[in-house]
Amino acid sequence: MSDAQPEIATGVVDLLGVLAYGELSAFDRLAEDARSAPTLQGHAALASMAAAEIGHYGLLERYLAEHGVAVTDAMRPFLGHVDAFQSSTAPRSWLESLVKAYVVDNLAADLYRELAEVLDERTRDLVVTVLADTGYSEFAQQEVAAAIESDAPLRDRLALWSRRLLGEALTQAQYIVAERDGLAELIVAGSGDLSGIAALLRRLQQRHTKRMKSLGLG
Amino acid sequence: MSDAQPEIATGVVDLLGVLAYGELSAFDRLAEDARSAPTLQGHAALASMAAAEIGHYGLLERYLAEHGVAVTDAMRPFLGHVDAFQSSTAPRSWLESLVKAYVVDNLAADLYRELAEVLDERTRDLVVTVLADTGYSEFAQQEVAAAIESDAPLRDRLALWSRRLLGEALTQAQYIVAERDGLAELIVAGSGDLSGIAALLRRLQQRHTKRMKSLGLG
Repeated sequence: MSDAQPEIATGVVDLLGVLAYGELSAFDRLAEDARSAPTLQGHAALASMAAAEIGHYGLLERYLAEHGVAVTDAMRPFLGHVDAFQSSTAPRSWLESLVKAYVVDNLAADLYRELAEVLDERTRDLVVTVLADTGYSEFAQQEVAAAIESDAPLRDRLALWSRRLLGEALTQAQYIVAERDGLAELIVAGSGDLSGIAALLRRLQQRHTKRMKSLGLG
Repeated sequence: MSDAQPEIATGVVDLLGVLAYGELSAFDRLAEDARSAPTLQGHAALASMAAAEIGHYGLLERYLAEHGVAVTDAMRPFLGHVDAFQSSTAPRSWLESLVKAYVVDNLAADLYRELAEVLDERTRDLVVTVLADTGYSEFAQQEVAAAIESDAPLRDRLALWSRRLLGEALTQAQYIVAERDGLAELIVAGSGDLSGIAALLRRLQQRHTKRMKSLGLG
């Protein structure tokens, strides 16, 4: 326990823990996908995205440590579900990798923005920093747009892929919320009541659908 | 060609190019090895080392761009030799990964420090920054020291491994120098004459040997 900083609620530790393991796991995924890039430029772009995730991981680690919590302890409850998501959605091509990075990063950003309202100011600032767009969404958008422009079957396959990503992500998120009371309480506090969880998931789906439309995969 | 900055010599472009691809390649290697870490802590430590390599890569990319050179063009001549080094020295265990990261990073730092004398001041500052110890050498040292403390056969195997790493690295370095006139000229300028290349390689070997002794692998 740190002397300088107040304790943080279990739900907040959970939130930062799943965010930290999400970053570490995204690092693994992006670093692996970088090696399948068709160009050196794409390779370096994905490696840089991966490095940005680790920068964010470091911020979360420091913040938790200041509150007397080891990041490894905070992450541990979430290894199973995050790993299950990754292995059920292993990309089979460079474009699937890009779409996955784009979909997951934006989905996570939406979810954390929804929850940010119930956090204290310093935690909220941290979450907003960690989820700041690292500028690579644009790279993914351009690559995908160029690839699908004159290839309707590819566009349909990637649209299907993006729907599967959403489904798998929401499935694992629901498992996590069901298992972690503190996290469930945080969401309920943020969304008003238990029926608010369903409304929150609907909003996430709507924003995802809107994003996919603007990517040409709607 | 940039208006603001003077042109840089071919040898310097080569030096920064091989350094950049070395960083990108080290990123791939460390990111892959991170996933075989026996603990979450080790996983995060190697992922952070990998992220630091990409930070350095970004500095080199920017510097080259300011001098009108695309980093991808600067790296291209070196893909084959760097990839050959990596595939001939793929670690088969977590400890081999750590020893490799430690050996290669320090060897590269020694080499570039040798060459830094012949660079103009700004390039020299860049090289020194890029090769600054990211603080992970200590992590590798502690892990290796703890593992070999009471395991002589393991110590002997890792000592053999470190000698093989040195041999493969020097082999590829010699191929590169033989193929790149500008780079050879830079080394000759730095070391006095052609026989200086042999003396430089001897110094690199000596420093490696000394480092391995302090790691307990001497």
